Amino acid sequence: MSDPNQNPQTDVNQLGEFGLIDHLTQPFALTQPSSLRGVGDDAAVIDNQGFLTVLSTDMLVEEIHFDRIYHPLRYLGYKAVIVNVSDICAMNAIPKQITVSIALSNRYGVEDLDELYAGIALACEHYRIDLVGGDTTSSNRGLIISITAVGQGEPDRITYRSGAKPGDLLCVSGDLGAAYVGLQLLEREKQVFISTPNVQPDFEGQDYIIGRQLKPEARLDVVELFHKSNLKPTAMIDISDGLASEIFHICKQSGTGAFIEEAKVPINQQTELMAIKFGLDPITCALSGGEDYELLFTIDPADLEKARYLPDLFIIGEITPAADGIKLHTSGGNIYPLQAQGWKHF
Amino acid sequence: MSDPNQNPQTDVNQLGEFGLIDHLTQPFALTQPSSLRGVGDDAAVIDNQGFLTVLSTDMLVEEIHFDRIYHPLRYLGYKAVIVNVSDICAMNAIPKQITVSIALSNRYGVEDLDELYAGIALACEHYRIDLVGGDTTSSNRGLIISITAVGQGEPDRITYRSGAKPGDLLCVSGDLGAAYVGLQLLEREKQVFISTPNVQPDFEGQDYIIGRQLKPEARLDVVELFHKSNLKPTAMIDISDGLASEIFHICKQSGTGAFIEEAKVPINQQTELMAIKFGLDPITCALSGGEDYELLFTIDPADLEKARYLPDLFIIGEITPAADGIKLHTSGGNIYPLQAQGWKHF
Repeated sequence: MSDPNQNPQTDVNQLGEFGLIDHLTQPFALTQPSSLRGVGDDAAVIDNQGFLTVLSTDMLVEEIHFDRIYHPLRYLGYKAVIVNVSDICAMNAIPKQITVSIALSNRYGVEDLDELYAGIALACEHYRIDLVGGDTTSSNRGLIISITAVGQGEPDRITYRSGAKPGDLLCVSGDLGAAYVGLQLLEREKQVFISTPNVQPDFEGQDYIIGRQLKPEARLDVVELFHKSNLKPTAMIDISDGLASEIFHICKQSGTGAFIEEAKVPINQQTELMAIKFGLDPITCALSGGEDYELLFTIDPADLEKARYLPDLFIIGEITPAADGIKLHTSGGNIYPLQAQGWKHF
Repeated sequence: MSDPNQNPQTDVNQLGEFGLIDHLTQPFALTQPSSLRGVGDDAAVIDNQGFLTVLSTDMLVEEIHFDRIYHPLRYLGYKAVIVNVSDICAMNAIPKQITVSIALSNRYGVEDLDELYAGIALACEHYRIDLVGGDTTSSNRGLIISITAVGQGEPDRITYRSGAKPGDLLCVSGDLGAAYVGLQLLEREKQVFISTPNVQPDFEGQDYIIGRQLKPEARLDVVELFHKSNLKPTAMIDISDGLASEIFHICKQSGTGAFIEEAKVPINQQTELMAIKFGLDPITCALSGGEDYELLFTIDPADLEKARYLPDLFIIGEITPAADGIKLHTSGGNIYPLQAQGWKHF
């Protein structure tokens, strides 16, 4: 952990607005054949011949979505890209370009921005995405990052939230709740750090849950395997607000009900142990904790054979008729209505 | 003028995040054939068969780009869309879709957002654009609006900043400096209003310059006439930072010089009179004032005949070889190097 106000910084005014844009975007080369023109004109130009364009946008606000005390700027830049890439993946499409707009207060210097953009560059490289535009301006408080991602999808592959039907299997691509428990741990250690700044927290053995919070990944690998195995989910959404909330979105838009089996919801052991330490129910963390960025999708049972190449596939329940409602089958054998409690940013 | 803190407001928490999104976006129907799916999934889906996708993004930050005391939210919503539409027009493309992300402090209530979105809706209707996505979140200070616009362009019509060549005519689509002088007037009246809040300012006779600042338009009409008359500018940019700054962009990216004739730069009479009242040189306002959102473009002199249908076409100078530099020919017969002083947001 570190106090972000302690580093001497180069004033962004030294570069000027256009100088700053050049400085930040110069390391980003265009590598996607569809990126005809990137930063440096009034707009980016994208050649999408025959594909559908998929478009998603997210805004991250300091003090609301991230805390500089435990969120290094490089990780933050990476995560800001991932959040958007994950939305494109949830459409069963391939992310291709992003625009990055930032507003920053005078607390931020050129070195800070270099760190932020190093993280953005790392995510772009890892997910083979071109940075093609953006806006930089000042704010009177903190840092605001607004990213828009563009993806390409074949018309018959694009997957909406609305295609699930009774009998479909409800699946997730990985374990849940870790990012939420990781955040609780970071928040606790922040309080310790504030009272005794010389003591650095020891996260040994907690690297998994910390990593899930600070450096999440989007499941582009899963989308690519869907394409390779010619498996098209009937509905899909990414888990940014929490499993329960996302199930409600799919059921609402598909006009269905669903049940999930508590015992089938994948939870990492570190998540489970730390949740219990915090006096939290692990299944509640998995259902209502956000920011795991796994994919939640439904598949026709006839397609199950095609799913065998997926590295991580957890069948956690089933889609039911709308009249059956949305239910949780507990490990103890009880059936409860599921509560949709996602992240609240207001 | 009004004090934005005086209105009783409905708390946005009453609606919840998804309820708020539904409430704000429900009036927006999709009307563009290319908008396959809008708000309500992980991403919007756009069908761009055969066209190029053009993508632009801008962020407006309270206290930096707008002042609630004289910027009604309805106008602000309109202007936030225009700023982006203007960038798409500057590519010689047709705006089709936008995403709107907002972060807002708890000073803002549902009625405020309704006003903002009413302005956004008006701009969407006027420019035939679909709102297809966005993000809403909270901020600890003020309102931040980040809009991304998507346009369509035929591959052989897209116009970059980089295509100007010596001998091309340098043209603007309308008069300049009004938005800047309008801002000076609003700032002066704000000071009067702060000291004597009961006295409402009288803007009679100043409606043009006030309107240019508060409710600018993008020159989509000019772009449509380019297409109709089969005239393709060799280079184009929109005037958001000021004429001089934009000329520098075109010259830098085209590898040319340019000269402009002071006497040919169109300045509205209201702008001229108010500039003089403020002790400002009208030509300086036109050269360095921003936010006029007119188009600056270069055309091959052989195409001049095709330009006769344009409603507003002012030939203000010419593109020259790079070695000649970027010059201002004054009305008095002098030649000076042009100074690039655009808006500075840092």
